[in-house]
Amino acid sequence: MLVVQKYGGTSVGSVERIKEVAKRVAKTKKEGNDVVVVVSAMSGETNKLIDLAHQFSKDPKQREMDLLLSSGERVTSALLAIALSEMGYPAVAMSGRQAGIVTDSVHTKARIEHIDRKFIEDELKKGQIVVVAGFQGINEQGEVSTLGRGGSDLSAVAIAGALKADLCEIYTDVDGVYTTDPRIEPKAKKLDRISYDEMLELASLGAKVLQTRSVELAKKLNVNLVTRSSFNDNEGTLITKEENIMEQPLVSGIALDRNQARITLRGVTDKPGIAAEIFRKLAEENINVDMIIQNVGVDGATNLGFTVPEDEVEKTKKAMEEIEASQKVEYDSNVVKVSVVGVGMKSHSGVACTAFDTLAEEGINIEMISTSEIKISMVINAKYGELAVRALHHAYKLDK
Amino acid sequence: MLVVQKYGGTSVGSVERIKEVAKRVAKTKKEGNDVVVVVSAMSGETNKLIDLAHQFSKDPKQREMDLLLSSGERVTSALLAIALSEMGYPAVAMSGRQAGIVTDSVHTKARIEHIDRKFIEDELKKGQIVVVAGFQGINEQGEVSTLGRGGSDLSAVAIAGALKADLCEIYTDVDGVYTTDPRIEPKAKKLDRISYDEMLELASLGAKVLQTRSVELAKKLNVNLVTRSSFNDNEGTLITKEENIMEQPLVSGIALDRNQARITLRGVTDKPGIAAEIFRKLAEENINVDMIIQNVGVDGATNLGFTVPEDEVEKTKKAMEEIEASQKVEYDSNVVKVSVVGVGMKSHSGVACTAFDTLAEEGINIEMISTSEIKISMVINAKYGELAVRALHHAYKLDK
Repeated sequence: MLVVQKYGGTSVGSVERIKEVAKRVAKTKKEGNDVVVVVSAMSGETNKLIDLAHQFSKDPKQREMDLLLSSGERVTSALLAIALSEMGYPAVAMSGRQAGIVTDSVHTKARIEHIDRKFIEDELKKGQIVVVAGFQGINEQGEVSTLGRGGSDLSAVAIAGALKADLCEIYTDVDGVYTTDPRIEPKAKKLDRISYDEMLELASLGAKVLQTRSVELAKKLNVNLVTRSSFNDNEGTLITKEENIMEQPLVSGIALDRNQARITLRGVTDKPGIAAEIFRKLAEENINVDMIIQNVGVDGATNLGFTVPEDEVEKTKKAMEEIEASQKVEYDSNVVKVSVVGVGMKSHSGVACTAFDTLAEEGINIEMISTSEIKISMVINAKYGELAVRALHHAYKLDK
Repeated sequence: MLVVQKYGGTSVGSVERIKEVAKRVAKTKKEGNDVVVVVSAMSGETNKLIDLAHQFSKDPKQREMDLLLSSGERVTSALLAIALSEMGYPAVAMSGRQAGIVTDSVHTKARIEHIDRKFIEDELKKGQIVVVAGFQGINEQGEVSTLGRGGSDLSAVAIAGALKADLCEIYTDVDGVYTTDPRIEPKAKKLDRISYDEMLELASLGAKVLQTRSVELAKKLNVNLVTRSSFNDNEGTLITKEENIMEQPLVSGIALDRNQARITLRGVTDKPGIAAEIFRKLAEENINVDMIIQNVGVDGATNLGFTVPEDEVEKTKKAMEEIEASQKVEYDSNVVKVSVVGVGMKSHSGVACTAFDTLAEEGINIEMISTSEIKISMVINAKYGELAVRALHHAYKLDK
């Protein structure tokens, strides 16, 4: 098998941790696999470099920030290759450039354009373990670029896709993907398998295991992703194509997103273009509008509701002040979004009904509802968030 | 003018120091010059990385050490470019690779093979200050290489040579080259100018301002080198071609080298091949033999004397044990080497005589003598080292 393993900042956060990672990599190699390892900077290093730069400029040049920030991953890759060689496992460290990772020219949040597989493949053919500095590449001009937060995951997924690896393991400090947050519902179970689409819903809804961009790329490149812990030997969660999941459960998990604010415009003139004006304005200001609800109006006026991340409420207020239509705006930051996610619900009716019944039984009022093929999201009063999660977790038998 | 400035580790050792360097660079630019800056890692950083690597291996892989160690200079170059841009001086940071520095493939002590000037020149044409990470380049295989200790000086000199810069300023924490060590002779004077050859003798004899390799390269590429301090505005010392120095003093300086041990073989059979055997063996063990003295023998036997660095005496003893001829070997670490250096002595007789007279007057016995066109070196008892330096400094009127 060809296995790509990615280790995050806490997994390589100290000399001892890097030695542990080296043992794990060596074991994988010893079992007969070809191994490519992608590493993050040691935890804290990237923030240290950002702080340094900010002592010179509030808004440091992005091209130079990339040269600066790319150094952390290079250090880790060199150290891990040294550790592996010392253990008798030939290993070679590569910067993003040396690994053939070519990006576009958007500094500090570049997109990978392609990977020249030759460089890694040549080393694998020689029997080497290849250790790649994550988070970075070079653009067509030969300048160093970085991929933004979560960039090392992207590096790993892109390399796995380019090399057609059998598996891409993402090691963090959590065991995998759970049916819900175990801190809210202790009966939460780790999922063995989950589809890309479900993971995307869970990730964007607040499950912090993997960033949306990485899951999207894995889906596009058809990479079998495993998320697991580098601190124990537990099996992780496989994120794969829907077809690869034999027994499809109705519902895979319940997500809670606390970073939500509800905005309501009452009595908006019910004519074409008003909603467009509002959301164009919000898009211009880079405000992430999530749910949008508009009811049929009465007497030529309607109510328009939408949600934005709670920390973007101030920005939203400013933007709305410039829109004439929005004279009667209500802001409510005291809400959360609870979501039921599962590809099984596509072919089953009654899933939504169970959710509504369950919350009603608990006396929880649903303020907004939005549904897709594989999820139902409900905005409720913040104080009921945990209760709703536990009730829904039980109602869909996720604790069984 | 096109000026290359190089700032060493203590000159960029903190955020405050980097800001001071930025001001100096900006001033040079403002005066109408094109400026290329070469920077070292912040002081302590390179040793920190070496320590990290040694926690994984006593003898870490050199290829990976290069990837590891090159990161320190990249960080400094990015930070300085950010600082300059913030001050309103457009600046661009470059790694060794981006600056077009191509080396051979000897990892951790590579030699610069050539510099592709296009990359730096393109940026200079745009009016940018170019900040290059010193100490590094890439080899023909595209791997990162480093140039060994003092490597940033080499980067600066090589860039100055490739761009035909008018001046290459090496900034450290000392003011320039002195007629002798001011800690030994407070009357020591800073030299305004000195020839490459004199500087080479002084550098290899223990004056720590510039490494021999950098001066050799400057001589080869005909680069006008200035060594000066980044902590004050004093004029430094210009190191240049002999022809550029108008009034040639007889003697430029007195050097003291304490890291010396004298080794004497008594009664060596006076036949061809014996000396060759000894020095071949020492060369194989990488022992730096300095002075070698052999007298005409008496009765088919002779005395052979040579010096090695004091810290290589143990290695030398081991090597000598394997040589049959060396049964009567005496080791004396209690010696120092005092040298009188000056291109003026080429055309003047009597310079050596003054040295011998001076030491005789002070009652100092000379144990070994070796001379070249521009220097006289004498090995004496260690306890007389400082006295000899002061007496010679006065005898050649260097304090005037």
